[in-house]
Amino acid sequence: MARFQNFDDSTSPAQGPERIAKLRAELARRGFEGFVVPRADEHQGEYVPKSAERLAWLTGFTGSAGTAVILQSEAALVVDGRYTVQAAEQVDTSVITPVQMAETSAEDWIAAHLPPGGVLAYDPWLHTSDGLKRLEKAVARAGGSLAPVDINLVDVIWVDRPAPPQAPVRPHPGDYAGEDASSKLERIRRKMAEAKVDALVISDPHNLAWSFNLRGGDVGHTPLPLGYAIIPLEGPASLFFDPAKMTNEAGAAVGDLAEFVPISGFQGALEELGHEGRKVRIDSATGAVALIRRIESAGGKVDVGADPVSLMKAVKNQAEIAGSRSAHLRDGIAVARFLAWLDREAPTGKLTEIDAVEALEAFRIETGALKNVSFPSISGAGPNAALPHYRVTGSSNRPIERNQIFLIDSGAQYEDGTTDITRTIVVGEPTPEMKDRFTRVLKGHIAIAQAVFPKGTTGAQLDSFARQPLWQAGLDFDHGTGHGIGSYLSVHEGPQRIAKTGHTPLEIGMMLSNEPGYYKPGAYGIRIENLILVEPRTIPGGDREMFGFETLTFSPIDLRLVEPSIMTEGEIAWLNDYHAQVREKFATELDAETLAWLEQATRPVA
Amino acid sequence: MARFQNFDDSTSPAQGPERIAKLRAELARRGFEGFVVPRADEHQGEYVPKSAERLAWLTGFTGSAGTAVILQSEAALVVDGRYTVQAAEQVDTSVITPVQMAETSAEDWIAAHLPPGGVLAYDPWLHTSDGLKRLEKAVARAGGSLAPVDINLVDVIWVDRPAPPQAPVRPHPGDYAGEDASSKLERIRRKMAEAKVDALVISDPHNLAWSFNLRGGDVGHTPLPLGYAIIPLEGPASLFFDPAKMTNEAGAAVGDLAEFVPISGFQGALEELGHEGRKVRIDSATGAVALIRRIESAGGKVDVGADPVSLMKAVKNQAEIAGSRSAHLRDGIAVARFLAWLDREAPTGKLTEIDAVEALEAFRIETGALKNVSFPSISGAGPNAALPHYRVTGSSNRPIERNQIFLIDSGAQYEDGTTDITRTIVVGEPTPEMKDRFTRVLKGHIAIAQAVFPKGTTGAQLDSFARQPLWQAGLDFDHGTGHGIGSYLSVHEGPQRIAKTGHTPLEIGMMLSNEPGYYKPGAYGIRIENLILVEPRTIPGGDREMFGFETLTFSPIDLRLVEPSIMTEGEIAWLNDYHAQVREKFATELDAETLAWLEQATRPVA
Repeated sequence: MARFQNFDDSTSPAQGPERIAKLRAELARRGFEGFVVPRADEHQGEYVPKSAERLAWLTGFTGSAGTAVILQSEAALVVDGRYTVQAAEQVDTSVITPVQMAETSAEDWIAAHLPPGGVLAYDPWLHTSDGLKRLEKAVARAGGSLAPVDINLVDVIWVDRPAPPQAPVRPHPGDYAGEDASSKLERIRRKMAEAKVDALVISDPHNLAWSFNLRGGDVGHTPLPLGYAIIPLEGPASLFFDPAKMTNEAGAAVGDLAEFVPISGFQGALEELGHEGRKVRIDSATGAVALIRRIESAGGKVDVGADPVSLMKAVKNQAEIAGSRSAHLRDGIAVARFLAWLDREAPTGKLTEIDAVEALEAFRIETGALKNVSFPSISGAGPNAALPHYRVTGSSNRPIERNQIFLIDSGAQYEDGTTDITRTIVVGEPTPEMKDRFTRVLKGHIAIAQAVFPKGTTGAQLDSFARQPLWQAGLDFDHGTGHGIGSYLSVHEGPQRIAKTGHTPLEIGMMLSNEPGYYKPGAYGIRIENLILVEPRTIPGGDREMFGFETLTFSPIDLRLVEPSIMTEGEIAWLNDYHAQVREKFATELDAETLAWLEQATRPVA
Repeated sequence: MARFQNFDDSTSPAQGPERIAKLRAELARRGFEGFVVPRADEHQGEYVPKSAERLAWLTGFTGSAGTAVILQSEAALVVDGRYTVQAAEQVDTSVITPVQMAETSAEDWIAAHLPPGGVLAYDPWLHTSDGLKRLEKAVARAGGSLAPVDINLVDVIWVDRPAPPQAPVRPHPGDYAGEDASSKLERIRRKMAEAKVDALVISDPHNLAWSFNLRGGDVGHTPLPLGYAIIPLEGPASLFFDPAKMTNEAGAAVGDLAEFVPISGFQGALEELGHEGRKVRIDSATGAVALIRRIESAGGKVDVGADPVSLMKAVKNQAEIAGSRSAHLRDGIAVARFLAWLDREAPTGKLTEIDAVEALEAFRIETGALKNVSFPSISGAGPNAALPHYRVTGSSNRPIERNQIFLIDSGAQYEDGTTDITRTIVVGEPTPEMKDRFTRVLKGHIAIAQAVFPKGTTGAQLDSFARQPLWQAGLDFDHGTGHGIGSYLSVHEGPQRIAKTGHTPLEIGMMLSNEPGYYKPGAYGIRIENLILVEPRTIPGGDREMFGFETLTFSPIDLRLVEPSIMTEGEIAWLNDYHAQVREKFATELDAETLAWLEQATRPVA
């Protein structure tokens, strides 16, 4: 039993047909040809509350991204490459057709399938301004039109829909936050003044949590308080929550920086901004068109652009960095104990993927500091390791077999920091090909860890360093090399990334993951992931301001999979130095048995 | 004396004040507050005819990019980092203020300086749709407005303005072009049908030249026939030229694929497209807003997007590739003779930058095939080599001194191919720092030459490979690593690039330059440039479709500047193999003296 994750097949393809039929009847009653069901809540979050899992409820598809378009005579579920297999398994394909986004976007599908004159309905709380523009073009191509609805049409037919979550909102202690909310608000207002806006609507709960040093528990794995904030250029801010979530501690912590307003007052507050003729910044990434319309129809001016908090939150302060280092040491001990246990137990052949998830969670709970896992562990044995976003369920669970690879990608939420680590282990003997591939992934990982780059460099400019050793062998991997990470917030945080799409310049204090991989479908998968921190570098004789990375994660890299003959001296030195640090940091923290295991797991290679 | 380039200081800062005063009087007469003078012709080309050198005539600034904004009470010349020094030297700064684009764009300057209510005039033939949108935002920020003019206001006061060029239009032989115009038009029309447009206006003369296998001589260094084409989805195309440029050979070559129409008929033809209600693709990169307005005001629909010819032209066919290989061997012989001559003569201390340009051009003329140089040579001795876009003039000309670096970046136009090569030479003894920097630039050059990458990779993803050896020493360079190149067309051709901004996936047959550098202001500069060709690569054991580069340029790399101790074995092997190929290709082509020089210049290093 795991406390923070489960292995249920929570949906079934059989649930779709009846619900879709009901939705179609509702559409017909209102004169609509179709309805768009994105996997989104009112905040465009990655993790959404159960009450917003409309796509899963309607179709059976539980992936973290996807859009269903339900028309009277046909229906599509458009998903990206990660979810092609899963979508086909989770939905009744006689009723809803899975569509590959890379070939046909939701908009392309609408343009090709919406009958001329057809009215496509949408929920204006679930689409951003950019998203709506794409929908508008699509229906125009089809010769149809769009219509907003006041109440989501899935909610109309979802009779036993869960209530919205009401987890209490608590202060995030200053020792961990490292900066008072008053100081943060001052910086935010400076950015607002530069952008010449009178008010900022914070629609991203991560940004709300960061700005006011608050945390909650409304969604899985991320301590989010779902709600909104309005920050005027002058005067107190307003925080909009379900009043059931408010606590005295949160009120005391926020003090006179902001007043708490029941969420029912939010739309009125937007209208008031409009009546006053204010120019209001709405976040282009998470701001729903419903917000924009409410302000504009009341006479206000909307400026759709980046919420300045996103970039501020990405740059960690000294307290957050210190917290992350502590969290990583604590987490590293739990992971070391888990890896030692795995090496003892796996050769028996009796462990399964689920056993591994449960054991790792138990070791983390034993730290006494675990608030949650930062995402459901990806625990893949053999061919399941080749699925980069695999989630084990009772029906998919595989034994961890000899001479196969086992991959586990997991993370923890501690109050002082969020972790995310992937290790790839061989049980028994690897094939020479496995060793070659693992070592190439490791060489890419080391290339990022050792990268030195001038100020102004983006993650997009570094991404290829992680791929080059694979490219030289005619191989590659189909995901980014790294994502940003929050401080006791989301395990995935922007705007910086190490990926083709990472166009934000890296700044000192930004945290990212470093996780190249290699996947052989049907056979095995490899990923090596540490978290890294952008730090300044002084290079004697250089004439540019340079940055590099500090590695935050400490945990052995499986030497049974390392082939030193294809590594450079510099790469071998990095690996030995990294392992020496692992030994040194954990020497006084581990029981004798684990320590003995660690000594051999981190022995120098040559 | 050079035949194809000159060393004149063709303008003087003194010419500006009187002309700007005249322009202001003209503005006042028409009720305008200001006028925008971009360095652009009606085709947005890099090389423009003398009749379109309005910015140089008005201000004295002769750089290839820049925008003047002349207001009644002040004036600015906005230039990018390449031209900061040159702009300050070439204009009278008491009348016109040079502005750094990285700090203040032309639009920012307008927003800050145009008086409220002021009308800023512009020539709609010299701005694209995107450019105009930026201008519109800028004047809106200033509280002013924009007004198009029918005749360019500089032309009104430029009494001795040269006539537009009338170089004859000639066919480009099929042996070099490698594909009939009829086949090209068929492919273009397929792209038009996919984009659902009824007609394509070709506003880029490079694309016109490629599509119809024509060449001309209207601008310096690129064999362009300035003109327009309209390609309807069905029926013959129309080519619009000054009738004085037409030749019987061109007419015979084009046959019934297109009719030649005097340029005076162009605007009527645009209106006709409008009257017929056609949907017309206008090139977003080169299409003037004047074109768009003419079509729209006559009732047509304009679709601003990429001219499909740009991408088609970038992918060279077998004849163009074979032609380029021949052109590079021919050019390589001229360059080898030049480098041998330089090694003999430079130690006397009597050579200058201009002597080097003249000698290299003379060796190229002796090939008997030179049509033109592909751009004015960049010939920099000592500190002048640190200016990446330096052009030597009589007043800037420096002697090539002992123990200094000399850099020469040059190219040729042959009918079978366009070349572009940079070599960096030391006369006498280099310092250890020079050797270190040169070797790091060489390591970056080799990293690109040896890169292997999957289909779909962009130049942006490869650019950092060229910088990594410099980054490791705290160094960098401030230009892209590579640009595309034409086939007996422009030395700079898009859309592919090896640069942060190179977002076009590389395709088999694309040609690019590979030219990392390092510049120490006031001291020396280094650049090593070869042209490269994207080719398929088969990698045993790989699972992706992979590409790599064939190097097209063969010429010694100065071994006196190479420090083998900081190179890998693989890098040294590349260098020795490259030099072995240089020796082999030229062994039977050179005189005994040059051959003896070549043998030692390409000796193996260890």
